[in-house]
This record gives sequence, structure tokens and C-alpha cells, in this order.
Amino acid sequence: MVNQTTNKMKIGEYKLQKKSGQARAGQLQTAHGVVETPIFMPVGTKATVKSLTPVELHDIKAQIILGNTYHLHLRPGEKLIQKLGGLHQFMGWDKPILTDSGGFQVFSLSSLRKITEEGVEFRNHLDGSKCFLSPEVSMQIQMDLGSDIIMAFDDCAEYPASPQRIQDSMDITIRWLKRCKEAMNRPESLLFGIVQGGLVYDSRMKSLEQVTGIDLPGYALGGFSVGEPIEKMHELVPKVAPNLPENKPRYLMGVGTPLDLLLMIDAGIDMFDCVMPTRVARNGTLYTSQGKINIKKESYKEDPTPVDPECDCYTCKNFSKAYLRHLYIAGEILGARLNSLHNLTFYLKLTNQARKHILEGTWDEFKTRMITRFVT
Amino acid sequence: MVNQTTNKMKIGEYKLQKKSGQARAGQLQTAHGVVETPIFMPVGTKATVKSLTPVELHDIKAQIILGNTYHLHLRPGEKLIQKLGGLHQFMGWDKPILTDSGGFQVFSLSSLRKITEEGVEFRNHLDGSKCFLSPEVSMQIQMDLGSDIIMAFDDCAEYPASPQRIQDSMDITIRWLKRCKEAMNRPESLLFGIVQGGLVYDSRMKSLEQVTGIDLPGYALGGFSVGEPIEKMHELVPKVAPNLPENKPRYLMGVGTPLDLLLMIDAGIDMFDCVMPTRVARNGTLYTSQGKINIKKESYKEDPTPVDPECDCYTCKNFSKAYLRHLYIAGEILGARLNSLHNLTFYLKLTNQARKHILEGTWDEFKTRMITRFVT
Repeated sequence: MVNQTTNKMKIGEYKLQKKSGQARAGQLQTAHGVVETPIFMPVGTKATVKSLTPVELHDIKAQIILGNTYHLHLRPGEKLIQKLGGLHQFMGWDKPILTDSGGFQVFSLSSLRKITEEGVEFRNHLDGSKCFLSPEVSMQIQMDLGSDIIMAFDDCAEYPASPQRIQDSMDITIRWLKRCKEAMNRPESLLFGIVQGGLVYDSRMKSLEQVTGIDLPGYALGGFSVGEPIEKMHELVPKVAPNLPENKPRYLMGVGTPLDLLLMIDAGIDMFDCVMPTRVARNGTLYTSQGKINIKKESYKEDPTPVDPECDCYTCKNFSKAYLRHLYIAGEILGARLNSLHNLTFYLKLTNQARKHILEGTWDEFKTRMITRFVT
Repeated sequence: MVNQTTNKMKIGEYKLQKKSGQARAGQLQTAHGVVETPIFMPVGTKATVKSLTPVELHDIKAQIILGNTYHLHLRPGEKLIQKLGGLHQFMGWDKPILTDSGGFQVFSLSSLRKITEEGVEFRNHLDGSKCFLSPEVSMQIQMDLGSDIIMAFDDCAEYPASPQRIQDSMDITIRWLKRCKEAMNRPESLLFGIVQGGLVYDSRMKSLEQVTGIDLPGYALGGFSVGEPIEKMHELVPKVAPNLPENKPRYLMGVGTPLDLLLMIDAGIDMFDCVMPTRVARNGTLYTSQGKINIKKESYKEDPTPVDPECDCYTCKNFSKAYLRHLYIAGEILGARLNSLHNLTFYLKLTNQARKHILEGTWDEFKTRMITRFVT
């Protein structure tokens, strides 16, 4: 069995098990167990994957979840979490956790930020007080949280950005990455570097060369899914990703829709995260094997059928569209729960099936069949 | 075992198993199984016990839950629920359901109500449109929902109320009760009559005599917990309840705190319902074996201990006060869930233990020990 092989793996070791074109199936050993890729990582921003318990995440086969450095630093604070045994203990999750560096949230949520060589000064979105993040601070926070995979503190250029802005962000990202690696002193945590470079192939490749020039247990592509037309990502990632080291895991940050996942797995990406499945769930949008639906629709008012007849999640096994619509309209918490559980099940099943088909040599047929479902 | 005895019971049969003073342990057979009393019934206003799934309710040993006629009539409508197989099927709950008559919500939530002999005309709180409830309409709604226990449509006087208002409400309540019984034509549903009469012993006893003069499978005391000083209820119920038929279940509507439950079980009450454990949970208030706490408190900020060391619910087994405080402060849905689960576990354990002690002849010691915990 898979677990027997992985028992011999060291923390940080990545094993490429099978390729189909550029698509990859692999295993990554972390301090809290093996992650089997391709994998989707549910987002647990504030030490909770919104509305769900750890036992539910186990049940739907989540293997690794995300925590957000920016949010957890502000509230309740990493020192408090550390004192209580670390993020795993705090939130009752005993499998791997990846934390982002906080950099992206500083850009998207805070105000009055000032970037210097040293780091970023900003006013936080909660009470407007002054905060400071730098490579060293971000590493320390993530180490205090006890994260299994620590993301480098980078500078992600907004979209659209000028060539100069892109160049500056690449330059500081690589200088900061060196400081991140220097600051890391927790052997159980794996540091992933982040490739920037905007949407131009040449600058992406230059950043990739710089970042992968530093030996690290994994690499990510940042700066996608930041507002650009999604076709640009679909076009660029397949050209860039295959140049990442083959023997290291590859993570495409903040992506995406089921279609994005299929296309990007095909481009050689191993790991994904996105708030979308839980966020849209709370707004009534549900992914199904027949495409996306919104449970608010009048036509579901008396619909006795489950959201997705092909789904075996608790929601689909027990409740009708009519009931979920009622919960949504009535503003009931249970609606947010049942919808979130379904959407995450859908995402995790998608990456799990992708893995299975890559391992079995049937990836191309599977991919083609699935893509037609999501291209509308 | 208990279930073997109850296999022989008919729907509507109540078996008084043991008494300790006025306190009673019994079993009530419904179309969806036996209810073992004393019992607390979680409130599922809009076809969901807020934030929880049916499987969680099973796990914490809920035996019977409430649905609200007023809310379900307005949204999604009883005809829709009936079409989808009834309330049990709609919400995925296969144990007993009791529904109230809608009368109380008309008084507490709607505007411009007009009481006539025929029924009550009102404008609903959702869109202000005109609605009408009467004994016949209420019975039909509850039968359409497929309720196991149907509450009579009564007139509950507000507090404080004049002697004339009390008298009028008693008079119309008994006339409406006769119409309720007449309108009932669903053999699987049990109709419970409701005793009114305000807070004066003589009028309570008069109403009790009138209502119990009509042969029904159960009786409730209404018009308590409507804003009166709670001592008045503590004083009056022990004088009134023992006059209810001994061979029928007794339900005290809308009550109450853990202390109320202990005192009222001691007064001979078998069934309770209250939104309190779930409502206050969403506001951070938690019941514990050491008394009530509010998780917001600064002093729990770094507290690694569970809410209640004597509790074996999922919340207490897996999470610290510090984590629950964090979820509360961050406004996370999971906080509402975990708190609700804990409080309902607490309530259900309390009635379950009460039953056990009544059956074992140790009720007095248990009651005394527990009351001291909740009198502060």
C-alpha cells in the first residue's frame, strides 16, 4: 500500500510516482504525514475551514489545509497559538497545515502600506493599528504556528502592473527569499519559494530561474488568480510549470475553479488552494458533476433530488435541493455548512480522481471528459 | 431492556414507570418511536435545529425536536413540505417531532392581529402580508407537516394581563380546543391540549379542569415563561401540575434554564422545550457543570481547558476555551456550531440523568446536588 512506501520517506521528501504528459502524481512527506498529489487544500483562514469541523474534513478526505499568517497574527496572535501547542493543537487538526506568508493579505486587505527593503509597514483591517511584516517576521510567525509548509514572504504585484513594477517585485522577492531561508530554523517545517514575474513568459522564466536557484523542498507560482483574464493563466502556466524542478512539489497559489484545476494539473501543478468552494457555498453556489448550480433558484423550490446524484457526501445523501434552498432562503447556518461540505467534497474528489487516473494511465480520457463538463 | 417493553405500546400510550415525590419517569409512544421522559426537546424553528445536523442530534441523544407551525407555514409552506414527504423527510430527522400551533408566534412576532371567535388575522413578520390562523387551519398545517405531537391552537395571554383578559383567553382556548379535536383526522398524530389561566391558582385550576375534561393523549401548561418573574412559575407549577392526569404526559411550554428544568421535573413535568440553549450558545454563553460561563471573557484568552471537564461532547473533547473564544471573537460559524452542540448536550444530559435518578430512586439527592450548582 501507499503508506508502506511512504513510511521510509524523510520530512520534505517528494516522490514523483507517475507522469502522464506533464500531469503528475506524487507524494510529499511532511511532519504531519504524507500529502498525496495532486491535491486541493481547503482554506482555513482563521484557524477554521469556515463552518466545518476537523472530523468532517477528515471524512471528506482533506489531506492538508491552509492557515493565514496575516489573520492569525492579528487575531488571536501566533504567540498565543504557540503557547496552546501550535495551530494543529489549537484547531484540532492533526494532518498537515500550509501557511501563507501574510504578504498577499497585506496587499489585499490592509491600508497605507509602505514597502521598504526591510519589509512592509501597514495598517491592519481590524483596528487600523500599525503592523510590520518582513521575511524574518513572517518566518517567525509561521514557525510559531508550527506550520508544516511555510511560504516565503514575497512581493506579489497587482494586476495590471507595469513592467517596472513586475521587475521590482521579482527583485525584492528573490532578496527576501534568501532572508526567509536564512531565518528558517525549524527542521519540521518546509519552506516553499514563490515564483513571481507577472504574465510575461520571459520575466516568469527569469524569476523561476532565480527562485529555483535556491534549494528548497518546494516551489509555488504566485501572482496568478489576482484579477487577470483567466485565459492568460491557462496559457502561461503550461509553459512555465514544466521548468520547475521535477523532483519537487509545485503549488499554484489561490487557484481556482474545477476547470482551472483540471487544466493546471495537466500543466504539471501538484497543489492548489482557493477560498472559492467555501465562499460561494455560503452564497448558495454548488458544484456538481453536471456543472455549477445556484440553490436559490425558484426551480429548485420543490425539487426532491439531491444536489448531485453522483456525490456521496452527507449533504447529497440526506437532503434535497428543496431543503437546501429553504435553508438558504431562511438564512440558516446549516445551509452554509451543508453547502460547504458538498463543495469541498467535490473539489477533493476531483483532485483525488485526477491522481487515480494519472496513476492508472487514464488521465487524458478523464481530463477530456471532465473538461467538457465545466466548459460552458 | 426499555425497548422491549415499549414494543407493545400503542401510538399515544404513556407509561408512567416510576415516581419520586411528584417527579416522574415515563415513556410516550409516538409514530416515530418512544420518547423517554423527562425530556428536553431542542427547538428546530425553521426545519433545522440551528447550526446542527440530524446526525449530531442523534449523537447527543435528542429524542424529539420541535418545529414551528407559524414559521414553516410562512416559509417554505406546509404544502411544499407535505409534497416532499413531510417534515421528517424534509429535514432528515426520523425520530419524533412536536409542532406548536403557531398561536404563540402570532402574538410575539406578527403585527396588527385581530382575534375573533373564528381565529386570528395578522400580518406576518416577513413581508407584512395578511394571514389567518384558526384551530382548523393550525390542525391542518400540523397534520400536513406530519407532526407526531400536535399542539392545540390556543390564546396565550401576555404578561401582565388583566383578570378579564385571562378569563377571555381561557374561555376561547377551551372553545378552540374542542374545534381542534374535531378537526384532527390523522391517527398517527397526538393532540395535546394547553392549560392557560395566567398566574393565579384558581384560574389555572379552572382552565386545567376544562382542558383535561377533554380526553387527549397529553396536556401542556402554556402561558409560562412569557416574561413573568420566574419565581411565580416556580411557585405555581408545583401546585398545578400534580392535578394533571397521572397517566398522560405533561409538557411545560417554552421552559427554561437548567434550574427551571430541575424544579419543574420535581413538580411533575415530563417535557420541556426552549430556544435558550441554542440562542445563548450563538451569543457565547455556555452551560457547565460548574455553572454558566461566557466564552467572550478575556480570562479565557489563553485557557487550554475544555468548557466543561465533565462533558464528553465533541466540543469539550476536542477544543479549548481559548479556541472557542477565538472563534466567537472572529465571528466564525464553527463557534456557533460547537457552542450549540455543547449546550444541547448539557440539556439532554440533564434530563437524561434526571430520568435515571428517578428510576433508581435517587432523585432527591441528585436534584439537591444539582440545584445548588445553578442557584447563584
